[in-house]
Amino acid sequence: MENKILDEVTEIWISPENNIPKADELLALIKDKRITEFREAALRIPPPDMAGLFDGVPKEERVLLYRLLPKDFAAEVFIEMSAELEEELIASFTDKELSEFLSELYLDDTVDIIEEMPAIVVKRIIKNSSGENRSLINELLRYPKDSAGTIMTPEYVKLKPEMTVKEALSHIREVAIDKETVYTCYVTDDKRRLIGLVTAKKLMLSNLDTKLSEIMEDSVIFALTTDDKETVANKFNKYGFIALPVVDNEHRLVGIVTVDDAIYVLREEAEEDFAKMAAITPAQTEYLKTPATKIFKARIPWLLLLMISATFSSAILSYFEASLIPVLVLFVPMLMDTGGNSGSQASVTAIRGLSTGEVEMSDALRVLWKEIRVGILCGVSLGVVAFGKVLLVDRLIMNNSAVTLTVAAAVALALTATIIVAKIIGSLLPLLAKRIGFDPAVMASPFITTIVDAIGLIVYFMISAYAFGLTV
Amino acid sequence: MENKILDEVTEIWISPENNIPKADELLALIKDKRITEFREAALRIPPPDMAGLFDGVPKEERVLLYRLLPKDFAAEVFIEMSAELEEELIASFTDKELSEFLSELYLDDTVDIIEEMPAIVVKRIIKNSSGENRSLINELLRYPKDSAGTIMTPEYVKLKPEMTVKEALSHIREVAIDKETVYTCYVTDDKRRLIGLVTAKKLMLSNLDTKLSEIMEDSVIFALTTDDKETVANKFNKYGFIALPVVDNEHRLVGIVTVDDAIYVLREEAEEDFAKMAAITPAQTEYLKTPATKIFKARIPWLLLLMISATFSSAILSYFEASLIPVLVLFVPMLMDTGGNSGSQASVTAIRGLSTGEVEMSDALRVLWKEIRVGILCGVSLGVVAFGKVLLVDRLIMNNSAVTLTVAAAVALALTATIIVAKIIGSLLPLLAKRIGFDPAVMASPFITTIVDAIGLIVYFMISAYAFGLTV
Repeated sequence: MENKILDEVTEIWISPENNIPKADELLALIKDKRITEFREAALRIPPPDMAGLFDGVPKEERVLLYRLLPKDFAAEVFIEMSAELEEELIASFTDKELSEFLSELYLDDTVDIIEEMPAIVVKRIIKNSSGENRSLINELLRYPKDSAGTIMTPEYVKLKPEMTVKEALSHIREVAIDKETVYTCYVTDDKRRLIGLVTAKKLMLSNLDTKLSEIMEDSVIFALTTDDKETVANKFNKYGFIALPVVDNEHRLVGIVTVDDAIYVLREEAEEDFAKMAAITPAQTEYLKTPATKIFKARIPWLLLLMISATFSSAILSYFEASLIPVLVLFVPMLMDTGGNSGSQASVTAIRGLSTGEVEMSDALRVLWKEIRVGILCGVSLGVVAFGKVLLVDRLIMNNSAVTLTVAAAVALALTATIIVAKIIGSLLPLLAKRIGFDPAVMASPFITTIVDAIGLIVYFMISAYAFGLTV
Repeated sequence: MENKILDEVTEIWISPENNIPKADELLALIKDKRITEFREAALRIPPPDMAGLFDGVPKEERVLLYRLLPKDFAAEVFIEMSAELEEELIASFTDKELSEFLSELYLDDTVDIIEEMPAIVVKRIIKNSSGENRSLINELLRYPKDSAGTIMTPEYVKLKPEMTVKEALSHIREVAIDKETVYTCYVTDDKRRLIGLVTAKKLMLSNLDTKLSEIMEDSVIFALTTDDKETVANKFNKYGFIALPVVDNEHRLVGIVTVDDAIYVLREEAEEDFAKMAAITPAQTEYLKTPATKIFKARIPWLLLLMISATFSSAILSYFEASLIPVLVLFVPMLMDTGGNSGSQASVTAIRGLSTGEVEMSDALRVLWKEIRVGILCGVSLGVVAFGKVLLVDRLIMNNSAVTLTVAAAVALALTATIIVAKIIGSLLPLLAKRIGFDPAVMASPFITTIVDAIGLIVYFMISAYAFGLTV
């Protein structure tokens, strides 16, 4: 474990004298009490990798290792750790240490930590924040779940339109240390309303005496505090920003979202969709670090639900069983699988379209029309192939005389109908889910498969019954 | 169409005098020959939205609209367009115009365009590039598909360690206009080898006489030109960079990847995985703009393949058909669906783990062990539930006397075995695929479902045969 992380660190490091610190070297330095050397070496490890190293350190040595890190670096490492480890370390802090530690954090990171901690730890964190930060934290915590307000930070560079470039640069030099980014600075009026932005590049290239009002961009793309965080993250993807301002309903600037947080949201939302489409409750933890029982808990409710819902298929089979000829059963798996696959294709396309903002509710009819055409194309061509395949493989090659022309025709017809229905249901269910306020991704493949299975079986047996002149 | 895009633009715009340009206003300005006003208004629209407006403009007016845009803005709009539109516009350029246009582009964007154009257009583009750019373009085109080399740009700020902060700042002012980012500058030695980096923030906060060698970070995370672009993009996610240097085998700095390109790669790779998992050939085009025939072509090969492969299930049913009692068929759908869902859960987890770098080939045994345990937990608990459900629902409620204790036990046992096997196959197939150089995502749900179906049926009928003392 330790060595694996180390190898990774080694791979991504370049250093002129090739003096890359190794984890065992770091621990040896601590044991030898060569603390200054340890700190120098530790600082050469990027915070996310340093956080990873903690997983390989015995529990009793973790607190010591953490305490020996330089304060500001320690804070950067802390925010990359798992919630469990964070809680463990916070428990080891005195109130004074906690207060000092919190002053090293950006406020959005503090809020991220708070959101993962039990109530008692949250109380301690808020109690030990400085007065001004405490009210800012409380404000950030009040924004609705998954809104822009929850991922923004109030720590940005705010400039006035009447400032000169020189004044702006010296203001940046004063405040930079506490700001998440200085590369995009925002210009506000007397009422704190956002009126423009100026990039550090522009400041660096402009004459020192120029007024900001002359060089600022006055058309600024922004987000509202209540906007969905995925919508906000999609703007970064579309426009290539490194920061986006967030305003309240009166257009007052209240914070910014930085590109690293946007990437995190994009990744997180995609992984959540992947999990839901595979009928898994999304988790925040890494797979390999998650105990089997926890993985079990994330998967079993859906399996159970889907298994029970397959009772419909059994019931349909049972209902038609007595009246039908046995050979028809042979083609049930093919019909079910192909219907399910057709439905998933349509549903995944719709779900991702909704997620990336390519497809909107108002596009429902266009989606429907497109999927009907695709469904007919797929259904007819697969129906023709299935007809030939049933006669050739099942009748001739496998020499099953029960497979008659009528059977082949019934299978082909049922397949065509099932595929068209599957495409329509597959594309419309996610849109319907969104409409009624459900998560479209939960309507994904497995659910659609279950519904399509049931419909496919009914269509198949009805067609067969008609073809063979049976009454059901 | 036009209005929809406009509404979107309106939503995301703030402007102090509320003078947001509307598409019909823009077109009216052109008709009235008020070109200066048109240009001012157009510049207020972000390039991606301006590119979107072109979709709503009749073909014959597009070239005119494009030509009226200010040159550098036009280039930014161009790179946001669809390949079809880009090709149409390039066809309208004279060689001289093309050459001027190319000089406005960053080289990585030129390469992106080239990669989507037919050979004849590529020849024209390369012919009309300036001599230096031509050789750089050719170099970029030579990097292996999907490597860091293909997404990097050679246009970055290069500094020397002996420069002072003042010299560095004035160098940046000179070259900034042609560089994709000035916020991270790279320090190289006499042999062009990467030895450090210095951020614009650091430069802005440092004393003007300080030498870069004193303030630069000398441990720099980098990528190799041959690294997979997804691995590179994952580093942005992990470390929160806004740029990453790319070096060749001799550690010479040859380019940088910027965060906007990294986001693009992350998004593109996720969408490709979504498509493959739903058995769709990934496309670069937007769903709603793609013709039904093209969507059909992306879906039909997989449906066909999967349909044919379901022949195995038919063959198995056919083989056991004669010797088994009909009631067993009732539980085939439940068995198949639950096995398929269990397999997808494991496979999607493995596929995404491989994609995000959380899971590596060397973890194969750990994955296997974890899925065996999860499989046993899921299998046993669902087996118990299925046993009860079959007796209660199918025997008592639905009053089917053919459903005996033995049948219920056979179903439950087969289900447990199928789920365990599904979990193992589901997790190992993606790893195996990667091992032999295949795309793990192609081994996704539908394929695994087909395999699990076949195995599940065999297990089910073998167990039943044994339970009923039949010979098969």
